[in-house]
Parts: sequence; structure tokens; C-alpha cells
Amino acid sequence: MTDAQSGSLPSTPLSSRAGATRDARHRRESRIMLAHGGGGQLTDELIGQFVLPRLGNSALNDLLDSGIVQDAAGTRTALTIDSYVVQPLVFPGGDIGRLAVSGTVNDLAVCGAEPVAMALSLILAEGLDKATLEQVLESIRQTAKEAQVNIVTGDTKVVGRGQADGMYITTAGVGRMLTVRRLHFDQIRPGDAIILSGPIADHGLAVMLAREMPEVHSALRSDVAPLNRMISRLLRRVPQVVFMRDPTRGGLASVAADLAARSGYRITIEEDAIPVQPQTLHAAEMLGLDVLEVANEGKVVIVVRPEGIEPTLSVLREDPLGRQASVIGRVEDARDGLCELKTAIGGRRIVQKPYGEQLPRIC
Amino acid sequence: MTDAQSGSLPSTPLSSRAGATRDARHRRESRIMLAHGGGGQLTDELIGQFVLPRLGNSALNDLLDSGIVQDAAGTRTALTIDSYVVQPLVFPGGDIGRLAVSGTVNDLAVCGAEPVAMALSLILAEGLDKATLEQVLESIRQTAKEAQVNIVTGDTKVVGRGQADGMYITTAGVGRMLTVRRLHFDQIRPGDAIILSGPIADHGLAVMLAREMPEVHSALRSDVAPLNRMISRLLRRVPQVVFMRDPTRGGLASVAADLAARSGYRITIEEDAIPVQPQTLHAAEMLGLDVLEVANEGKVVIVVRPEGIEPTLSVLREDPLGRQASVIGRVEDARDGLCELKTAIGGRRIVQKPYGEQLPRIC
Repeated sequence: MTDAQSGSLPSTPLSSRAGATRDARHRRESRIMLAHGGGGQLTDELIGQFVLPRLGNSALNDLLDSGIVQDAAGTRTALTIDSYVVQPLVFPGGDIGRLAVSGTVNDLAVCGAEPVAMALSLILAEGLDKATLEQVLESIRQTAKEAQVNIVTGDTKVVGRGQADGMYITTAGVGRMLTVRRLHFDQIRPGDAIILSGPIADHGLAVMLAREMPEVHSALRSDVAPLNRMISRLLRRVPQVVFMRDPTRGGLASVAADLAARSGYRITIEEDAIPVQPQTLHAAEMLGLDVLEVANEGKVVIVVRPEGIEPTLSVLREDPLGRQASVIGRVEDARDGLCELKTAIGGRRIVQKPYGEQLPRIC
Repeated sequence: MTDAQSGSLPSTPLSSRAGATRDARHRRESRIMLAHGGGGQLTDELIGQFVLPRLGNSALNDLLDSGIVQDAAGTRTALTIDSYVVQPLVFPGGDIGRLAVSGTVNDLAVCGAEPVAMALSLILAEGLDKATLEQVLESIRQTAKEAQVNIVTGDTKVVGRGQADGMYITTAGVGRMLTVRRLHFDQIRPGDAIILSGPIADHGLAVMLAREMPEVHSALRSDVAPLNRMISRLLRRVPQVVFMRDPTRGGLASVAADLAARSGYRITIEEDAIPVQPQTLHAAEMLGLDVLEVANEGKVVIVVRPEGIEPTLSVLREDPLGRQASVIGRVEDARDGLCELKTAIGGRRIVQKPYGEQLPRIC
């Protein structure tokens, strides 16, 4: 944590975590809830109960940020898709267009693929101001240029007034694998370090603050950015990287809990080592949210062998998007699959994947 | 036209075609209208004025059903995306899930690509019945199996009650080019034949009838189906195929007008040769729609050199999805870029791309 720009994390437990009774009631529900879209345990349940039993295959079952397919000649191609339903469409530090391009290139990048081409599908609401559409398309243009990727195909649908809140965007991306190494949870080993590329929670809190408290003036801005060029340099220069994931919905907590659960090892995270900006902490306090569970859109969590730590920090810190990169934790030689947070005040707590939705419509 | 299953086309001009005054007013509008999503002239305007000036590149500017990218080694990959917002979600002959899978594999197939993998993104509305979600996912499973393609990655978002009408689906697909031949408008030559794989207008009219006149009992069912296996056999066996397109939004009229405008040649279509089922004509009459302008979701229009006509008809007719394939027109040696329809009663009229939206939310 860089003292000048950071503060300590709140140590209170999550007020939004539901009790066992409420969970049981939720599970009995026969209808989709907003919480199913939170990227937490309920999203996992939806995917596990409804999607995988029907559509499961080796690529989909991995539940990585991209699906990877290999052709007869051995060429591996990555494919990813994400829909964006953020409100408001334009927020401090970005808009739905920048979000859609960044999200897709980042999902390819963390799987070790370089974006080759993107596809863009717009669902527009009748009555949307064309000036807003122009602004979003201009932002898509700029972000695609920044990421050095072309949009090669698209689709436009229009739905009735009041539906789709102005617009929803879905982007898909196809990527060429940069490395023959397999970046996967099953490559994680005791002794590996957990590196985070910069301060957390800026995106989700910037959007929530703009939506819930538009009267508040804050220096907080979303971190939304395409990370593919930084990640591509990292993969070319540091062969010891074994896994990456971008901590979007569900935040760092969700990624850290997943790393532990899916590698089967204990992960220890040092709260003091996690960079957080003071304005971000302030916003989290006002909104009653845990920064660990808030979405980022321009950050990456990297698991790396010990000998790759310094080269990784060096590559990340050369880039403006990774200037505050830090080692935040390590993989322990214990096979309980839990993630433990050592808090700033010396306590310990288990980091769980958030249950439902604490932040609706932030991406 | 197979007499037993077909009838004559209505010869009255389109009542929905707007007059010059209304057009001018529309163009001045600063807001998105439902008609912008119709796949007709207004959709083209939106893409031409807003999207291409910002995001244009050689692949996107082609405005084909898939974007085709070539890597350094010369390997060509096709990428496509489409959002589906159909209402009702389940309609006679299919549902939004079958539509989403078929639409994406068909967009790859008509560009000469074999689907390698698909991506699926769901936008669910709070309150959606889980049983409906299950039904749609089951339909996705069956259709993907029929098309022999795997869904390798996905995303789920949830939006508030009343938004997204239950659910929207976006699918993307990546394909491997089946042929080194370039299927493109610029390959079209005088003397080429226009072949249609079967009767038109079933999809759009089945959906409209279900939505607008649910009390009417009709044998009409959507034609929604994945065509990739039939098209792949065609490409392997008939090297004289030069262009293909699936007549979805805007119908056969839109594809025929595009063939003429973008090849630069006159296209003549014989109304008598276009297969239409009697129940489809009946529904078109009740709803006041022109079958030429109604979307199909399981048909393909093929442009082929004269020596490829018989082999094409033979391959198509071997498949249940192409049993009623017919030659419906030809490319003339005249460079006016117009499409002329010779009507069943001996008249002639110019076929234009529909202006706006006669059929909202049919795909």
C-alpha cells in the first residue's frame, strides 16, 4: 500500500451477507433475482444448476474469462463475450462503450490471448438520444484504438421506450494464444505469489456514487481501461506467470476466494498490502460497501512463481496502468482451499465470495 | 413454387412504405426509433452515419454477416455477433434460444465458415420464471447439438423487473473458413442464378401472429433452424457458389435489393418461382404484410454460376431444410444495380429494401 494514496481497509464484516434463513428462502425462489447477476455465489448457483448441466463441455466447464478451443492443427483460439447494462451510461472516468471494449480485451488478455478482432452488438431503446449514441461510439473507437483491436462485425436491435435503459452493449472478442503455457487454476502451487496491478474498487464505487449520490463531488473515477498491451508484455517477458484474472464483479474477494477454492490451496492475503485510494475508501464508507467486494475494470490479479515476482512488478510498474502493482499475498502449503485475510489491525478472517448482489448494474 | 404448398404473392404495393414527407421528418429526428432496428434503409443509415465513420475498417465496411480476419500465416477466421430481443420468448416452431444459436451459426455459414465455437450472453430480467430460463437453455442445448457446435464461454447479467422483457440473448460465433474462395458481392456476374432454399416469411409471420393475434389458430410455424451442415456440404460439393446470405430482418426483398445494389448489376426475380406456404400467405393477408419483406430464420439465398445450378439444387434438396429449393432469379447483363420483380400476374416492379420497421421484435 502506498501511504500517500491509500488508507486502511474497513475491518467490519459485511452487513450485506445474508443469514442462513434468508439464503434458504432465496434458494427456494422460482424466479430470477437481481442478486443472480452479482457475480457471487448466487451467480455460480445459476450457472451450476441451469447452464452447465445442459451446455457443459471441457472449455465451458473451466469457467475461465474466455473459452479456449484447439483446432486439428493445434492452434488455440480464445473466445469471450460479455453484456454491459451499467447505469448511468456515462460515469466518472468512462462510459458503457469504454467498459465494453475494455472488458472484452481484458477477458482475452488474462487467459493469455492477444485480441485479434472484436464484435459489437447494440440493443438500443426507442427514444435514446442520438448524441448519447455518438458519445458512446466515439468512446468505443478510442478504447479500441488504445487496445489496438478492430471491431470487425456488429448488430443493432431496437426495443421499446423504457426498456434497456437507453442501451445495452454486448461485445465478443476472439484472441490468438500468446503462449503455449496453460494459464489455469491447476497450475497454482504453494509458494506462488499473488500480485495485484493497482488500487481496488474505483470502478464500482465511481458508478454507485454517480448513481446513488449524484450530488456528492468526488475525485473518484472508474479505473476502466484495456490491459491487453501491459499483459502481453508481461507474458512475453515473465515465463513464471501461472494464472491471471481481472477482479470485476464480486471484486478482489471473489477472485481470491476462487483462487483458493479452485486451486485447492490456502491463499493468504495481506490487507495492508492492498492499494486503495483515500477517495475510494471514503466512497465505500458513505455507501456502506466493502472495497474487497467492489468491481474493478482496469486491474489484474496475477499468480506467479517466486522467481517471477520482481520481473512481474517491474513490467507492471513500467506501465501507467500498473504503477502501483504490489504483492498482496501468497499460496500456502495447506490444502484447505480457503482464502484468509490478515487484517491491518492484526486480525484474521476468511474471505468468501460475496453471496449475491451488493452492487447492481455496475457493468 | 410447389403448387400443393404454395399460393401467389400479394401484388399490392407496400402500405407501410413511407411517403417522402414522413421520411424527411424521420431523418430530422434526433432520437432512436423502433424503425432503426428493422434491418432496412433506416438501419443502414444508422450504421452508415454513426458506426462506420468511427469504427470502420476493411472487414467491418464489408457489412457481411460475419467479419473475416486473416492472420500473418494466412489463416482466415470469421467472427459474428447478434442480439435477440424477440417477443414472445417462445413462439410456434421455436424460441429465443433456438433463434440465437441458429442465427449465429447461419451468419458464419453464409460467409463460408464452419462454426468452431459459440459464446452466449444472457441479460435476464428480475422476476423471470426459472422454468422459462430452463426451457430456453434446453432449446439452446438441442440446437447447438443439431449444429454440432459447442458453447465455450458465456456471461449472465440481471436487470430490473420490467426491463429486458424476460430476457435478451446475445450470441457470438467464431468460424474456420471452409474455402479459399472469397464469397463476396464483388464475385457476382451476369448469368449467375439466384437460388432460394425454401418457402419464405414463416418466421416473422409466426412470431407476429403469436404476438398480435394469439387467438388465431394456424399451422404456421417459424422456420428457425441451423443451416450450417447443409451449407457446408454445398460448399464442399459445388465450387461455383459465389455468394450467400440468409434473408433475416428485411426478408428476401432486403437481400435481393442488396445483391443488386452492391454487385452493381440488375437482378430479376420471378415471383412465381418463390415458394410460399398457403398458411403463410394467409397470415400475411391478416396482418397486412408483404411476405417479401418478412424475416426468415432457416433459409439461405445463394448466387451461383450457371453450371452450379443443378448441383446446388441437388445438394439442397437432399436436406430436409432445403427440400423446396428453387431458382428464383438471375443476374442480368445490365449495370443499373436494381432488383426487378416479375409479378405472378405479368407486371414488373422494383424491389426496394424496406424503409423502416414493419415487424418490430421478431428476432
